[in-house]
Amino acid sequence: MNPRLYLCLLHHPVKGRAGETIASAVTNLDLHDMARAGATYGVRRLYVATPLENQAVLCRRIVAHWTTGRGGESNPSRKKALELVTVCADLDAALGDVARDAGERPFVAATGAAARAGAMGYGELRDIVRTGSPVLLVFGTAWGLAEEVFGRADAALAPVRGVGEYNHLSVRSAASIILDRLLGEGG
Amino acid sequence: MNPRLYLCLLHHPVKGRAGETIASAVTNLDLHDMARAGATYGVRRLYVATPLENQAVLCRRIVAHWTTGRGGESNPSRKKALELVTVCADLDAALGDVARDAGERPFVAATGAAARAGAMGYGELRDIVRTGSPVLLVFGTAWGLAEEVFGRADAALAPVRGVGEYNHLSVRSAASIILDRLLGEGG
Repeated sequence: MNPRLYLCLLHHPVKGRAGETIASAVTNLDLHDMARAGATYGVRRLYVATPLENQAVLCRRIVAHWTTGRGGESNPSRKKALELVTVCADLDAALGDVARDAGERPFVAATGAAARAGAMGYGELRDIVRTGSPVLLVFGTAWGLAEEVFGRADAALAPVRGVGEYNHLSVRSAASIILDRLLGEGG
Repeated sequence: MNPRLYLCLLHHPVKGRAGETIASAVTNLDLHDMARAGATYGVRRLYVATPLENQAVLCRRIVAHWTTGRGGESNPSRKKALELVTVCADLDAALGDVARDAGERPFVAATGAAARAGAMGYGELRDIVRTGSPVLLVFGTAWGLAEEVFGRADAALAPVRGVGEYNHLSVRSAASIILDRLLGEGG
């Protein structure tokens, strides 16, 4: 198995509390947790997409601290994780970069907590990943990906369900669980 | 299935960078992410254990903001998650509370990133959870649980492995993945 899995964390267009489209602020621990999970599961790259220039600058400073600065000297495993991060403006930029790296357009799967008709199950996406086809998993911050992102994706991945009706996972938790479902060996 | 699963996040005794035993500072997002994942998987209670009184005060303020304060008014799903949190001094206090709630001493499983001889696999622990026996999963902050915690546990749970050798997950990610492995339906 030689998975070619890429992650993209979108800060725009995502939903705000009332369902309106917003650009969200970057959360430091999103970068760390998703990069560490990405490194654990052999992810090729984590795109952190924000159209806000000051947020992009902040992201690049965080990444540089751990990859070329003092953070990485004191914590080499964190350096290895943060080296997976590419800061970019939007989904198109991430898609273009994946296509260059993989040599073909990836299969794009959008994630979210809401049940959607026709959503793709984990077994089906796992099969695609395990054939070695490039796959880009798209995650939304704030209250989740705006509807237009689902319209552009090849599939909506089924939401992570636990026990009962509550399913308000953080994007950090959801991304970790999804990586384990697609690539983990279940212990 | 009526799982009786409890989580405990220890801030002491845990390991520091050099393996020394420390008491770590509380991370706000540990409480949120583990409480949200706990609510998603039907966990009975999340114990946040710290012997440092100022850290315990901070934890109780965070929890109160979301359970009885303004946070919960604006975000009811976060209220429901944070209501799972009990702040306590140490593992003994958590164990005593679980024993009172469950009517018997729980099976205690300690978690960590390092491979350990005799570690329990996920299938075996899942079987225990699914019989309905009370189980307390213990997580360490900082560089992981001190050795003495493993000495007191009934089992060490096998580490989460992904693809390859890198396995430096955040405790937030590890807890989420472990809950999904024990209680999720795999999509």
